[in-house]
Amino acid sequence: MKILLPDTMPLAPALPEGCEAVTVDARAEIPTEHHDAQVLVLWGPSGRHLESAVDNLADLRLVQSLSAGIDGILAAGFREDVVIAAGAGLHSRTVSEHALALLLSLLRRLPEAREAQQRHEWSTEIGGLQPLHPEGRVTTLIGAKVLIWGFGEIGQTLAPMLTALGAEVRGAARSAGTRSGYEVIAEADVLAALPEVDVLIDILPASEQTAGAVGREALAALPDHAIFVNVGRGATVDQTALREALEAGTLGSAGIDVTDPEPLPVEDPLWDAPRLLITPHGAGGRPVGADERISANVQALVDGGEVLHAASR
Amino acid sequence: MKILLPDTMPLAPALPEGCEAVTVDARAEIPTEHHDAQVLVLWGPSGRHLESAVDNLADLRLVQSLSAGIDGILAAGFREDVVIAAGAGLHSRTVSEHALALLLSLLRRLPEAREAQQRHEWSTEIGGLQPLHPEGRVTTLIGAKVLIWGFGEIGQTLAPMLTALGAEVRGAARSAGTRSGYEVIAEADVLAALPEVDVLIDILPASEQTAGAVGREALAALPDHAIFVNVGRGATVDQTALREALEAGTLGSAGIDVTDPEPLPVEDPLWDAPRLLITPHGAGGRPVGADERISANVQALVDGGEVLHAASR
Ligand SMILES: NC(=O)c1ccc[n+]([C@@H]2O[C@H](COP(=O)([O-])OP(=O)(O)OC[C@H]3O[C@@H](n4cnc5c(N)ncnc54)[C@H](OP(=O)(O)O)[C@@H]3O)[C@@H](O)[C@H]2O)c1
Ligand SMILES: NC(=O)c1ccc[n+]([C@@H]2O[C@H](COP(=O)([O-])OP(=O)(O)OC[C@H]3O[C@@H](n4cnc5c(N)ncnc54)[C@H](OP(=O)(O)O)[C@@H]3O)[C@@H](O)[C@H]2O)c1
Repeated sequence: MKILLPDTMPLAPALPEGCEAVTVDARAEIPTEHHDAQVLVLWGPSGRHLESAVDNLADLRLVQSLSAGIDGILAAGFREDVVIAAGAGLHSRTVSEHALALLLSLLRRLPEAREAQQRHEWSTEIGGLQPLHPEGRVTTLIGAKVLIWGFGEIGQTLAPMLTALGAEVRGAARSAGTRSGYEVIAEADVLAALPEVDVLIDILPASEQTAGAVGREALAALPDHAIFVNVGRGATVDQTALREALEAGTLGSAGIDVTDPEPLPVEDPLWDAPRLLITPHGAGGRPVGADERISANVQALVDGGEVLHAASR
Repeated sequence: MKILLPDTMPLAPALPEGCEAVTVDARAEIPTEHHDAQVLVLWGPSGRHLESAVDNLADLRLVQSLSAGIDGILAAGFREDVVIAAGAGLHSRTVSEHALALLLSLLRRLPEAREAQQRHEWSTEIGGLQPLHPEGRVTTLIGAKVLIWGFGEIGQTLAPMLTALGAEVRGAARSAGTRSGYEVIAEADVLAALPEVDVLIDILPASEQTAGAVGREALAALPDHAIFVNVGRGATVDQTALREALEAGTLGSAGIDVTDPEPLPVEDPLWDAPRLLITPHGAGGRPVGADERISANVQALVDGGEVLHAASR
């Protein structure tokens, strides 16, 4: 069995006997001598690469993406009997780490500290003796009420980190219940919950249902001191409403790793919104445990076992 | 029994029967009608306040500081039989949170992202696909080797947070051993350990022994990609050596909450060192659990029990 690995990251999966792994250029067409491959691993493929796979890999049985979002691959036109597996879970730890970095940076006012530093100013407003819970402001996770909107793989990885830092964490998903020991509210109840939320973390996928979920209404429902973090998808936020809330002072601060569109156009007024931190979609971008996932799913293919995170087609 | 509380933070300790709590101005002399107090709680006292306590509180039995460092109080001249208790542990969670904020901000290159944002630039160098462990750089705590130099109350609170994020954590203290489940090396072995360290976190107290501990030799021993964080005391670092290592590129980046002296003078060249983040001693500054500590130690005084964190005098 021939397995094509992308050259876009170092990979060395352990493979069952009789399997041969070949590394190919993920930005180019697949060379003719590898059109007999049965497994295609994808990480940052070009459109040309994807097309040439659809057109030429006659023996293909499994497409293993290392991305969490596989909308593009599902739409590429692979035969119905080809299994398409998502890289769900491979980004949970890195995206959680980045969400925490954005959040703590805003809580501890590091961008303001950096500006004071550039003025050579020892700001007594940022440092020194201070109340744990100052009026109209949230400056620590100790006792902070956090809502994670989109409580899947990433949200459930992030939640215990926030709990360890002293936060009271709840999730929101399509249905209510308890997941990983956390209370999860249903989407329909989010708006009513927001007035009690100090920190809102958006880890929603992009879909018709989630488009603009964090819009004018949600932002108005949050207290004026609330911090908003988005490591999900840019399209889940109404960016004009976000900018206006920051400008009006009806939102404390925000940190976003994703925008709509990406890259954010140079002339977009969002760049200059006050108390906003933008990172250029760098939360994930480095799968953790890719070798193990590839091994497991190739083994499942050989044994006729269950392929992890196979998409329903 | 009369207990004097400072007006510098909200306090409402539960007290044993017969105890009376009075709030006084921590920046002024103690009023004559309260010279009969037996317990004095201190948080950000002025020199005048401290002096007037030493001179006038004839019945004083316990000085309860809410600070972790009590050098100034020990030197103030209280009678030998007055018990002086430190606020050890009251700052462990806030200082840990701040250390994590500085560290994650540097790992995730948020200061650089902020500068790119100010240029309206979607930096593909910071975001997008990237190796988990790029050559000559540390960009995540996953698999990072962290050494916490000064592994007391704060260090042992921070360590599990770093472990949860995927780091390999060790401590360094005056003697080797295992504490809170972590391997702790002795001070004498730190220099030999540094070449293998990705992140060095300084949580040392100021003392004759720790002065300049992070100096030219220690900084040279760290790999060029290493990140240095200081939430202990400024005097534990040779600031000229720190600036020169950053300028020479022999240190990856640094985040410091403490300097020597404080405030850092406006003309100090440290302000402009590259890849350095300075916060104005704001890691702690907000005791957590102060009421409970005061209650416990007043009760101990009444019962003849053990006063928590009483200093040896
Ligand atoms: N910034 C980055 O670098 C980066 C990297 C990787 C991923 N991401 C983004 O993060 C997203 C989440 O990843 P994940 O691995 O956590 O995905 P996941 O495990 O599929 O979880 C998605 C969560 O969102 C919830 N959800 C979906 N539609 C919803 C709706 N209409 N209302 C409320 N909740 C809804 C799901 O609810 P149910 O549980 O009820 O289904 C689930 O809890 C990805 O789709 C991707 O867009 C970003
Ligand atoms: N930035 C802020 O806002 C802030 C706030 C609070 C505290 N602090 C600073 O943080 C310091 C630590 O606080 P803590 O509560 O963790 O104190 P702690 O519990 O007393 O711990 C101090 C640690 O440092 C170690 N140590 C002392 N001298 C040493 C030496 N010469 N070589 C190696 N290790 C040495 C001790 O070793 P042993 O365990 O072997 O004795 C102990 O592990 C405080 O003293 C204060 O300076 C800063």
